[in-house]
Amino acid sequence: MRISILGGTGPEGRGLAVRLAMAGNAVCLGSRDETRAIDVAIELSSSVGIHVIGLDNAAAAKDADVIFLTVPYQAQSELLHSVKDDLAGKIIINVIAPMEFVKNVGAKALDVKAGSAAEECRDIVTDSKVVSAFQNVSAEDLENPDLELDEDVIVCSDDPEAKTLVMDLVKSIEHLRPIDGGGLSNSKYVEQITPLLVNINRIYKIHAGIKITGI
Amino acid sequence: MRISILGGTGPEGRGLAVRLAMAGNAVCLGSRDETRAIDVAIELSSSVGIHVIGLDNAAAAKDADVIFLTVPYQAQSELLHSVKDDLAGKIIINVIAPMEFVKNVGAKALDVKAGSAAEECRDIVTDSKVVSAFQNVSAEDLENPDLELDEDVIVCSDDPEAKTLVMDLVKSIEHLRPIDGGGLSNSKYVEQITPLLVNINRIYKIHAGIKITGI
Repeated sequence: MRISILGGTGPEGRGLAVRLAMAGNAVCLGSRDETRAIDVAIELSSSVGIHVIGLDNAAAAKDADVIFLTVPYQAQSELLHSVKDDLAGKIIINVIAPMEFVKNVGAKALDVKAGSAAEECRDIVTDSKVVSAFQNVSAEDLENPDLELDEDVIVCSDDPEAKTLVMDLVKSIEHLRPIDGGGLSNSKYVEQITPLLVNINRIYKIHAGIKITGI
Repeated sequence: MRISILGGTGPEGRGLAVRLAMAGNAVCLGSRDETRAIDVAIELSSSVGIHVIGLDNAAAAKDADVIFLTVPYQAQSELLHSVKDDLAGKIIINVIAPMEFVKNVGAKALDVKAGSAAEECRDIVTDSKVVSAFQNVSAEDLENPDLELDEDVIVCSDDPEAKTLVMDLVKSIEHLRPIDGGGLSNSKYVEQITPLLVNINRIYKIHAGIKITGI
């Protein structure tokens, strides 16, 4: 599968690139800065022994059928408007967990008018199929190819076919289990687990993830 | 430990009563309707083979050092104002996950002005020590004494001593693991996991819970 990761030079994008390439996909990192995308792609390719390419975000969006969004929430709207036409008809996997860091509090979820980053995304790229996933998996754990993952990825979408494809994509990454999280209206709850995990990470000095029990 | 469960005749209260009594605590169910509290206490005591008593909410609040709140969110404020004086100096364990059910959507978290049910509770019973916990454990699983639990309970509080006591209480229930969830400002994220789990339950026909991985 041809996959591009927009905003892919940040920690979550790098981590996803590693695992998706290890699972046999053709992965392209997108960045506002093409040179940066190429540099990170070369660095990951040589350090992890995978093949990843780098392009600017618009070219990366054109190049793939499945597109991950891993920019900070604050950059989502501008990015989506700038590449909207290149995303038409494609599957967008929104990994964004809107949050900020507050002194003496830690990570704090941001209020999003549309409900969640994924729903705001859906309202902008109306011709794309939006799926929400991967917000709760540690970027550091993803980027370390020797670390055995052992957690769940909750997948939410209003498009059943796109959801199935993304759940299969999760399954293709070793030791990740996809969980059907229902419609996109549930993405808010999944996105807000991320600041909770960030705060738990700080308490326990770990890279926390989650598992749904009883399945 | 003397534990009272206010609003304790509902599913979550019944389930907690069973597990807390099995762990050796003296448990009292509180209800607006004392007769109902006594009836449920007798029913649980005989069906599960534990000893639980029933009182009206105010008497139950007076009777204990540790008080669980398991009323629906919509009833929290009224209940707390009515028993506020009896809660002074005591530890309140807030189990409430504010939500409603919306047709074609499922469970939906309610917006809470204070941030979370637990923070709203803290703002009302200012002389009590408020801890948030147990929102994500299935009431049905708790009430079935033969079912082996296998999940985590995230515990949030701004009072370190009260938090430690509640984490120990979680540990006293077989196969539940307490997770330090930081301050009460994190309770919102934990409370909102509940509607997500309710919606996942509907998809998979299960009683979902959560585990934090990496600890």
